Amino acid sequence: MIHRIDRLALELPTPKNPSANDAAAVQELLGGKFGEMSTLMNYTFQSFNFRGRKRLRPFYELVASIAAEEYGHIEAVSYAINLLLTGTTKRGHDPEPGPLQNAVDARNSYHFIASGQAALPVDSMGLPWTGQNVVSTGNLKMDLLHNFFLECGARANKMRVYEMVTDRTAREMVGYLLVRGGVHIVAYARALEVLTGVAVTKLVPVPDLSNKAFPEARKHEQKGLHLKLYTFSPEDYLQAGLIWNGPHPEDGQELQVVQGSPEGAPYPDLEEEPQLNAPGAEDFDPEMFKDIAKKLGIKL
Amino acid sequence: MIHRIDRLALELPTPKNPSANDAAAVQELLGGKFGEMSTLMNYTFQSFNFRGRKRLRPFYELVASIAAEEYGHIEAVSYAINLLLTGTTKRGHDPEPGPLQNAVDARNSYHFIASGQAALPVDSMGLPWTGQNVVSTGNLKMDLLHNFFLECGARANKMRVYEMVTDRTAREMVGYLLVRGGVHIVAYARALEVLTGVAVTKLVPVPDLSNKAFPEARKHEQKGLHLKLYTFSPEDYLQAGLIWNGPHPEDGQELQVVQGSPEGAPYPDLEEEPQLNAPGAEDFDPEMFKDIAKKLGIKL
Amino acid sequence: MIHRIDRLALELPTPKNPSANDAAAVQELLGGKFGEMSTLMNYTFQSFNFRGRKRLRPFYELVASIAAEEYGHIEAVSYAINLLLTGTTKRGHDPEPGPLQNAVDARNSYHFIASGQAALPVDSMGLPWTGQNVVSTGNLKMDLLHNFFLECGARANKMRVYEMVTDRTAREMVGYLLVRGGVHIVAYARALEVLTGVAVTKLVPVPDLSNKAFPEARKHEQKGLHLKLYTFSPEDYLQAGLIWNGPHPEDGQELQVVQGSPEGAPYPDLEEEPQLNAPGAEDFDPEMFKDIAKKLGIKL
Amino acid sequence: MIHRIDRLALELPTPKNPSANDAAAVQELLGGKFGEMSTLMNYTFQSFNFRGRKRLRPFYELVASIAAEEYGHIEAVSYAINLLLTGTTKRGHDPEPGPLQNAVDARNSYHFIASGQAALPVDSMGLPWTGQNVVSTGNLKMDLLHNFFLECGARANKMRVYEMVTDRTAREMVGYLLVRGGVHIVAYARALEVLTGVAVTKLVPVPDLSNKAFPEARKHEQKGLHLKLYTFSPEDYLQAGLIWNGPHPEDGQELQVVQGSPEGAPYPDLEEEPQLNAPGAEDFDPEMFKDIAKKLGIKL
Amino acid sequence: MIHRIDRLALELPTPKNPSANDAAAVQELLGGKFGEMSTLMNYTFQSFNFRGRKRLRPFYELVASIAAEEYGHIEAVSYAINLLLTGTTKRGHDPEPGPLQNAVDARNSYHFIASGQAALPVDSMGLPWTGQNVVSTGNLKMDLLHNFFLECGARANKMRVYEMVTDRTAREMVGYLLVRGGVHIVAYARALEVLTGVAVTKLVPVPDLSNKAFPEARKHEQKGLHLKLYTFSPEDYLQAGLIWNGPHPEDGQELQVVQGSPEGAPYPDLEEEPQLNAPGAEDFDPEMFKDIAKKLGIKL
Amino acid sequence: MIHRIDRLALELPTPKNPSANDAAAVQELLGGKFGEMSTLMNYTFQSFNFRGRKRLRPFYELVASIAAEEYGHIEAVSYAINLLLTGTTKRGHDPEPGPLQNAVDARNSYHFIASGQAALPVDSMGLPWTGQNVVSTGNLKMDLLHNFFLECGARANKMRVYEMVTDRTAREMVGYLLVRGGVHIVAYARALEVLTGVAVTKLVPVPDLSNKAFPEARKHEQKGLHLKLYTFSPEDYLQAGLIWNGPHPEDGQELQVVQGSPEGAPYPDLEEEPQLNAPGAEDFDPEMFKDIAKKLGIKL
Repeated sequence: MIHRIDRLALELPTPKNPSANDAAAVQELLGGKFGEMSTLMNYTFQSFNFRGRKRLRPFYELVASIAAEEYGHIEAVSYAINLLLTGTTKRGHDPEPGPLQNAVDARNSYHFIASGQAALPVDSMGLPWTGQNVVSTGNLKMDLLHNFFLECGARANKMRVYEMVTDRTAREMVGYLLVRGGVHIVAYARALEVLTGVAVTKLVPVPDLSNKAFPEARKHEQKGLHLKLYTFSPEDYLQAGLIWNGPHPEDGQELQVVQGSPEGAPYPDLEEEPQLNAPGAEDFDPEMFKDIAKKLGIKL
Repeated sequence: MIHRIDRLALELPTPKNPSANDAAAVQELLGGKFGEMSTLMNYTFQSFNFRGRKRLRPFYELVASIAAEEYGHIEAVSYAINLLLTGTTKRGHDPEPGPLQNAVDARNSYHFIASGQAALPVDSMGLPWTGQNVVSTGNLKMDLLHNFFLECGARANKMRVYEMVTDRTAREMVGYLLVRGGVHIVAYARALEVLTGVAVTKLVPVPDLSNKAFPEARKHEQKGLHLKLYTFSPEDYLQAGLIWNGPHPEDGQELQVVQGSPEGAPYPDLEEEPQLNAPGAEDFDPEMFKDIAKKLGIKL
Repeated sequence: MIHRIDRLALELPTPKNPSANDAAAVQELLGGKFGEMSTLMNYTFQSFNFRGRKRLRPFYELVASIAAEEYGHIEAVSYAINLLLTGTTKRGHDPEPGPLQNAVDARNSYHFIASGQAALPVDSMGLPWTGQNVVSTGNLKMDLLHNFFLECGARANKMRVYEMVTDRTAREMVGYLLVRGGVHIVAYARALEVLTGVAVTKLVPVPDLSNKAFPEARKHEQKGLHLKLYTFSPEDYLQAGLIWNGPHPEDGQELQVVQGSPEGAPYPDLEEEPQLNAPGAEDFDPEMFKDIAKKLGIKL
Repeated sequence: MIHRIDRLALELPTPKNPSANDAAAVQELLGGKFGEMSTLMNYTFQSFNFRGRKRLRPFYELVASIAAEEYGHIEAVSYAINLLLTGTTKRGHDPEPGPLQNAVDARNSYHFIASGQAALPVDSMGLPWTGQNVVSTGNLKMDLLHNFFLECGARANKMRVYEMVTDRTAREMVGYLLVRGGVHIVAYARALEVLTGVAVTKLVPVPDLSNKAFPEARKHEQKGLHLKLYTFSPEDYLQAGLIWNGPHPEDGQELQVVQGSPEGAPYPDLEEEPQLNAPGAEDFDPEMFKDIAKKLGIKL
Repeated sequence: MIHRIDRLALELPTPKNPSANDAAAVQELLGGKFGEMSTLMNYTFQSFNFRGRKRLRPFYELVASIAAEEYGHIEAVSYAINLLLTGTTKRGHDPEPGPLQNAVDARNSYHFIASGQAALPVDSMGLPWTGQNVVSTGNLKMDLLHNFFLECGARANKMRVYEMVTDRTAREMVGYLLVRGGVHIVAYARALEVLTGVAVTKLVPVPDLSNKAFPEARKHEQKGLHLKLYTFSPEDYLQAGLIWNGPHPEDGQELQVVQGSPEGAPYPDLEEEPQLNAPGAEDFDPEMFKDIAKKLGIKL
Repeated sequence: MIHRIDRLALELPTPKNPSANDAAAVQELLGGKFGEMSTLMNYTFQSFNFRGRKRLRPFYELVASIAAEEYGHIEAVSYAINLLLTGTTKRGHDPEPGPLQNAVDARNSYHFIASGQAALPVDSMGLPWTGQNVVSTGNLKMDLLHNFFLECGARANKMRVYEMVTDRTAREMVGYLLVRGGVHIVAYARALEVLTGVAVTKLVPVPDLSNKAFPEARKHEQKGLHLKLYTFSPEDYLQAGLIWNGPHPEDGQELQVVQGSPEGAPYPDLEEEPQLNAPGAEDFDPEMFKDIAKKLGIKL
């Protein structure tokens, strides 16, 4: 089970230049083969399916806690997309002037027809995410190797999307994820090291370019965010620390496990898009909640 | 963000008759169009994408909290599948006698080739779950209507899988989900009622057969589990109670919101399947963790 | 079985500004999850699969007749797309100057490579329509609920495509379909009302914006087109009138069943596109048909 | 537009041995790459998209009328599937005894979970039909060549399904479709002959085995059913006769065009399957229709 | 088995105007339904699956040798795409300036995120090639008919892509493939003629426009390239000549079988794209190979 | 370009017990995510797309030569499937007795409907192979890491299929591929070692079980087949030897590059299946080739 915390992993600024095509490109990091839907679902199923966890519990806890963090990542990418799309069409209630005219040339028409200018589990070409992206072989060495590979592939995609999209909203998100994804790369490499004795962490970074080339990642690493593995659980998964320890392969600083999650930030506000009837419900009077709230003692 | 709790939503017994084909049928409830992957991802994306939530916050919180519960449901279905598959092939390390011979006739070969006798995000025919199953239009009335429909469809599927699979592991899981899914059906119907004034809750049950026809559901309803909407959050989403209140449409008992989640139960043990190298790692000596655990003060 | 009538449901003007990207957007209404292929095939299969129709015949006849109308809707959307595409590339027989150069930047390249500047069963991103879009559970209440939901989703898509595309060809088609789809929404809501006693028709319109906001729909409603359910059959399906009766939920006018179909209009002319070899066959001499026509008594 | 006739193309007997796996195999003829969904949709879109039909009208009318017949073929295959599935599980309202137990081993679980023991637009492996199966190039020679090929492929599939399934329901349906599909093969071959002068009809039969080897086809051919091209329209498409004329390539009898459609037969009865809640609605009292029927003058 | 020759089928010039959208269009010829992946895989599987090849060996050898040529065609299309993409983004190591900014508007984002500005087995809309494109019925007449149809469809696609893309790199490639694909069209038509006696070759060209309308094809035909069927094998497949003989259907020149393959040309150079880390490995010192090369006697 | 050699990589015995379900399982090794279609197409596209090959030529040649070998592997798996399917249905020309009756219960109906009891590019559940399985990032380190992972995943699949299928035909094929795939695993590990200095070869075997546990693999390793990397080219790719050298990680024997390919063996005979019309063409008289063979000097 999970408990949901109504906060975003990082503080996301509003875009300087909202852009439908930027949003379309960022979708790769959400619903692409190497997107966050894939990392989330791979580790989630691997944790559900983990056999022999009595004998190999620290590996189980490592995978389980990283899986939990990935939920916050599909969330972060989604909010970046939503912000990039907010206000990209002309606001208003009247359909006659064609308020969505620009969307005809946008690269992802689903953003304007299927969703209310918001994220969907599809990639940068609009292709839906598929369960075929999940690898859960049950063999620990194989799954760890896969995860290491998957995170490196995800990193390559983030780097390239960073190079495509210059708006600060997207780049803040990508910079943060480069650091946190970097933690996962090292974590799976460490797990392989612990399991086999082979110095897999020395392979990083893959691709070769360092996170330090990305200012929005660099600032987080300067604060040591690349050293911390959060359990993303109030009480469980501390045994991940039996794997996540020792020096970081790139700068030699000490790795540390932290119970719980980062503090996060309030969600950015997602304005209404009346031309899309998103959310609509304009006749609805929210005042009606006041009495019932008082009666039930619920804070508005 | 989420916090993960290392417990299962309900206590799952081990099967009396492990069965690969039963497990294959249950996959529909995980990765089918109306399976828990769909409910999880629909509400999750709708919550990320919810525009105008200042004005319509109780609706947002309702969707967000139900989304959180669904994570526990993909987990519950996965464990039921894993238990049904445990021990269905002949255990051993030697491939020569063909320990997986029976699997040649099993309906879902992925369980034996792709996974280590464990769940995958595919349906009862092995077709992968797809992001096309997510509807997130951004229009509140539309999304609520969709969710009501989706939950009814999910209920129909659960009823039919119950009729296909008689083993107690599957039926305990389905019985529990019929009750909890029933809560979601009423919740979305209530939300439509609050929004429009139309008595949508009177449509339940869809399909017509009552949960009371299922002993494994009945026992939970007798304890009032069908009346509780959990926030699945330590502090957030209590405003869901502004919608989830009043009498239950079937028995007239009072609906109530509960902060947090059900207590749950420890995970059932998933035994190793050595013939599948799941998890393998037999040369690995878990004793090596003892020293590091002592040094780092981590409890084994 | 069907009889085909060589006429289009409505009169479609030629576009003022043929546009490949407008045509690409309109494809969502043909081959999208909520497009006319989906409504056609959902109701068609539900009618084939309807069990117990002796007991519940009026419901069967309602679904069967609406299914028949949807064929005319895939036709109407297809012709709108074909008109929007006609003349969008430079006409001529010589490939050397690159008559399809503009198509390189068009959003749907299939229109120029796979088809002869014409419609295909794909959505606005070019993704093919899939049988997964068909819901036919066999449970009447469930299927009716689905159909009500599906039509509302289709309506949301039409409204948004209307806002994207301002050309009169597309808007005439969308306006007409908003009205006829509106009939189907009310029909399925009425069927649920008759079946359950719940006032489902009060939920309309979903999304909240009225058809009256669309001039091309308004003009048809002023003539009462939103009140008529056609049987789309010379003799069958009149029992649909046992459900389709009473006042329209939005304006209170009386609903009525009409045997047969609307009169329709001749198809717009689809000019040849010689640069695409569509239709080619330029050496063929149609004169050769004259003799055989005379001999067989067939009118040319 | 179409008019729907509430009759089936042929009279279908009830199965001697209802069989879920037989039904699963027959699905290939409905939703497979070479199934009737493909023939229906290929010719339908080609007829919508036909450019230059003034100049080449007989070809247009040929394609349009065959498209219309194909609707009756998806219907015929669907009813055969529905009959093969009727009664394959234990009837009753109580889920507890597991009335669908046998379905766990059935090859197509969708028949029991997604539908109410009824047809879906999927193939013999449960893979959904896809719009990628539609070829509509706009080039007449190319489209005719495709259609000739498609019909031959469809014929090969019918022959093989005939060899798999021995029950009379399926074989009556396949026998009929072999004859009618045979008409379409010759029709497209004739069209190519008329267009190019090449004796394409001499290629039939493809595959080599004659329809005469199938008793259920032979009996129809003895009555001349292989000689008739129906317009499937009350008034249109007679110009198809400018192509469909001359001797049949296999037996030399004269080809003839018939205005309208075959007489057909009443639909076989599809009994209720209460264990699937198909159609459910057991509390509903159909008597309520009597008064309204009298009032509206509708015959029950 | 195969032997690979490190040469390209034709000499490809570098583009005058590299263009991401041109490259996107050309993808249809690689990964589209009628692309070279389809021709390669259809004939390859048909050759593996050919039953009764003792009796029908010349047909087997014809299919096998054409299959071998198609490998060179997926290669040729891939190189054309790679050349069209080379240099389309700003080169450099620093991600900060957003060197891939233009790619945000490109029609195929996979070229910049998934690959290093290079070809992928997807079509012009980015949809992946699928095994569903393979037809291998095992019936010789049926398979030959399919192949004739497939090659004609492939020809139509090539003609249309030629009309979309004017750059010389693409057109050289398309011109060459029109000629070689033309050989395959005639080869399968000839095979049908030999098998059935029907003059299928008279149907060419399909579509109607001659290769002579394409200067880049014409120049090869003037040298007789359309007359030669290569065995693409050092010793095998000469029996293809028992089918490939007689006059060419368009110009009457004598067809001839050639043992082996065309001479081909060196691959064009694919420059590094450092902003994509393609290939990266900049710290790697290739000098390290010198010693080992000397020691092992391998020529650098 | 390639030259095709009309021989199979290994000698394949005929099955002792032909079995449709065994054949269905083996399909995973052909068209599954980790099947030979995937290895073939991944390395093939990586070799086409390899940028900077002047600087990094040995890596290019390694990938290119392994790609070439994979063609022989899709061939070997296909022939094993074809042999397992040969004779699994009752032979004869008459469809009436239902010669394919058993196929109704077979796990892969495509083998009997779509193909003539022969292989298709689909996996063990019949899902078609897709281009999404191709990873070609252009970054050398990333692609090598992927390939190492892919080969390990392929190995896991082979091991499990071996445990499912006990017939000698399948096991001979799997044993051979375990050895040759093992070469590829070590080759990519070596390439990563050469590139990065990290001892990646020490990770093998993944999964943990050694090839020595499989008698049909062991016998090849005893002859040193696991030590040889063939160039699969008459003249090219010898520089692969700059990477493929040094001791084998498991037994320390010296690795060696061999110009060319293994000798291979004649294809096993694939008997006709007349009930499937595979190949049909029974009226065709192969004698007609004799004269033309004599005239053209072609040896029969």
